[in-house]
Amino acid sequence: MAGEGVKLLGYWGSPFALRVRSALKLKGIEYEYQEEDLGNKSPLLLQSNPVYKKIPVLLHNGKSISESLVILEYIDEVWKHNPLLPEDPYERARSRFWAKFVDEKCVPALVGTISKVGEELEKGVREAREHLKTLESGLDGKRCFGGTKIGFADVAIGWIAYLARIEQEALKIQLIDQQSMPVLAAWIDYVLEDPVMKELMPPHDKVFKHMIGMREKLIAVVSN
Amino acid sequence: MAGEGVKLLGYWGSPFALRVRSALKLKGIEYEYQEEDLGNKSPLLLQSNPVYKKIPVLLHNGKSISESLVILEYIDEVWKHNPLLPEDPYERARSRFWAKFVDEKCVPALVGTISKVGEELEKGVREAREHLKTLESGLDGKRCFGGTKIGFADVAIGWIAYLARIEQEALKIQLIDQQSMPVLAAWIDYVLEDPVMKELMPPHDKVFKHMIGMREKLIAVVSN
Repeated sequence: MAGEGVKLLGYWGSPFALRVRSALKLKGIEYEYQEEDLGNKSPLLLQSNPVYKKIPVLLHNGKSISESLVILEYIDEVWKHNPLLPEDPYERARSRFWAKFVDEKCVPALVGTISKVGEELEKGVREAREHLKTLESGLDGKRCFGGTKIGFADVAIGWIAYLARIEQEALKIQLIDQQSMPVLAAWIDYVLEDPVMKELMPPHDKVFKHMIGMREKLIAVVSN
Repeated sequence: MAGEGVKLLGYWGSPFALRVRSALKLKGIEYEYQEEDLGNKSPLLLQSNPVYKKIPVLLHNGKSISESLVILEYIDEVWKHNPLLPEDPYERARSRFWAKFVDEKCVPALVGTISKVGEELEKGVREAREHLKTLESGLDGKRCFGGTKIGFADVAIGWIAYLARIEQEALKIQLIDQQSMPVLAAWIDYVLEDPVMKELMPPHDKVFKHMIGMREKLIAVVSN
């Protein structure tokens, strides 16, 4: 489907940009993708998201939309086919609630843990696991947050879960395990097996190396 | 209009509960209101918002919805008359963006400032003013965030602005002034003059006293 002048400013390893890419892909919207150098942001990025100066930014018909969850809502409203949000208002509220929960609780805990060592690391892992366990309750026996097919909350949370799995490997910690979070673990497997998610998935080894590099850099900053 | 079993758990001074009350009022939805004692929350609140255990919670037809912005979206989807969000997807995205900005930037800065003194207070005020100045840019020459009539972002932000005005008086600081933020100041006047907002407005003196009390309590905790 023609995207009528759709352009996305993103970064390969950003789960927030990947949310938008999967939403566009699920809808079959063609778009131009511009990879940003986060150390040297393009004038277009600085100008189109003056408040946060962050990716992702969706440009559509000369207008710019920022904040990944706001962009997902926009995409779902402009291109109504293959809806991302469920039809029922209560289920829509549940999807929004859990996507927001992940951004407000899980993401800070997971990101904060990357730079931690020793007891602080253990504490960070405990906190992240508590939030992930709460997140699991949001599935409420369903296959996906959106019910039976991948939607708004699944693409919003799925990329965070993909990175959390690599984080636990890189830091040799346990964040999500089959035994204590069987429903969440099964959901991650299901979402990451989706053809749209698979196609967009940044390579495991590249993410792993990037995370180790980020950890080393952050630990050096903290110890200086 | 009959609310078909609508109940709201709130707290008189909470801008987040007031958001929901104004949305219901703008739609003309009848509802039962339950005031919560935040020091001794009701079993209904604890059970209906197990994740955050916070007000506001909207109960509708045996289901519970939490998080004020998620509740506003729900209300707008269930009762479609007198829409809160504009019709145009781009304008809807702008409303969501600015409501989110206020919750993520302005609210923490304004709340954080309540307990500060001396240089820390000055720093807190500077930070809050910067965010409010950014917020002003979101009006973009319009009378309201929603265009010409009060909507989603206006009720979401209006209550925060009402409390910010009382905060500046209670703490003898300058947060929003006519000279450096004329557009934001005019918008606040306009929104708070709206009959629906006026009817729900918690009394100035009660809020003022509550804020002073909160400040004294917080300062005592910090100095101990």
